[in-house]
Amino acid sequence: MFISFEGTEGVGKSTLIRKLYDHFLAHGQDVVLTREPGGTPLAEQIRALLLSVNHDEQMSHDTELLLMYAARAQHLQQVILPALASGKTVLCDRFADASFAYQCAGRGLSREKLQLLNDNFVSKMPDITFWLDAPIETGMSRARERGALDRFEQEKVTFFEKVRAGYQEIFEKQPERMKRLDATQTPDQVFAQALSYIDIE
Amino acid sequence: MFISFEGTEGVGKSTLIRKLYDHFLAHGQDVVLTREPGGTPLAEQIRALLLSVNHDEQMSHDTELLLMYAARAQHLQQVILPALASGKTVLCDRFADASFAYQCAGRGLSREKLQLLNDNFVSKMPDITFWLDAPIETGMSRARERGALDRFEQEKVTFFEKVRAGYQEIFEKQPERMKRLDATQTPDQVFAQALSYIDIE
Repeated sequence: MFISFEGTEGVGKSTLIRKLYDHFLAHGQDVVLTREPGGTPLAEQIRALLLSVNHDEQMSHDTELLLMYAARAQHLQQVILPALASGKTVLCDRFADASFAYQCAGRGLSREKLQLLNDNFVSKMPDITFWLDAPIETGMSRARERGALDRFEQEKVTFFEKVRAGYQEIFEKQPERMKRLDATQTPDQVFAQALSYIDIE
Repeated sequence: MFISFEGTEGVGKSTLIRKLYDHFLAHGQDVVLTREPGGTPLAEQIRALLLSVNHDEQMSHDTELLLMYAARAQHLQQVILPALASGKTVLCDRFADASFAYQCAGRGLSREKLQLLNDNFVSKMPDITFWLDAPIETGMSRARERGALDRFEQEKVTFFEKVRAGYQEIFEKQPERMKRLDATQTPDQVFAQALSYIDIE
């Protein structure tokens, strides 16, 4: 099973992923914990380029999108597809939906370009995607508590409102795959919501 | 005017570009000398990922192609398009044809994927492309003399034969844009061949 986790900054993705990882392990499942952008040494180097703040050179929208998909292609081939092929469960912190939410809904990049990259460079989508949803201000204050903000976290609240609307759009179009979790609840409650969608004893 | 330079390793691209650059300057032209992958600080960082040799993790074909186009998108927007807009001549060491020759003809990557990236992420093709052509063994021995080989230079002769055939294919399809120069001649002769295609006093 391939499970991805989505949401804006500070909604508690890492906490939920860790709880599910422990849960799968406790039930004797082979589970791989990974993240995007990143997940392999090369893809993590691409991630570093994507997250770094450079005031001298603005990254073009096309560049950002292509770097995301370069990292994703590497991650899929090196980590996700081999793990799934050997029967493991893959827990992935963000995947293709994040590109739609951040680049298209957030920055206004062409949906056609994204669709075309998805169609040609993403051969496997998650079986289930947990969207941790909470008001932007709730997540932002949690993210700020964590310390220095990266290039994405430095965006303004209006940007994240658009990102959240992007996730909402995917949720409405693909309710069988994307499950909305109420991320204003406690970590244990969010974990219980997630478990209710997963068939594991 | 946007001029690109193509060819396999060691055919003398750098020497010709330098001569043309000096020639344009001597005739009072505003000229920008750049290269791919690279041409901006960010694109040069992407270039470093592309050229580095890592024996622990193989770069997938899709990743290589997407990184090339990420660097190209950045280079176009930050350097090439602004220079052309302000009336400058741009001399570019490799451009989109290299992706066709190396990735598609050389490595057998899908031509459809490349075409799709070209159609959607390359808004400007060169006005003229000089293809410096020479037998592979001629260029390889020159490249070896320069020292340690990068990830592309480490490929085998059969790979470069395919790359050369890829350039031949573009040359046959787009003879109005791509000009073949006989790179077995001396640097001055190659320079004279190139000049014969350029309208500059």
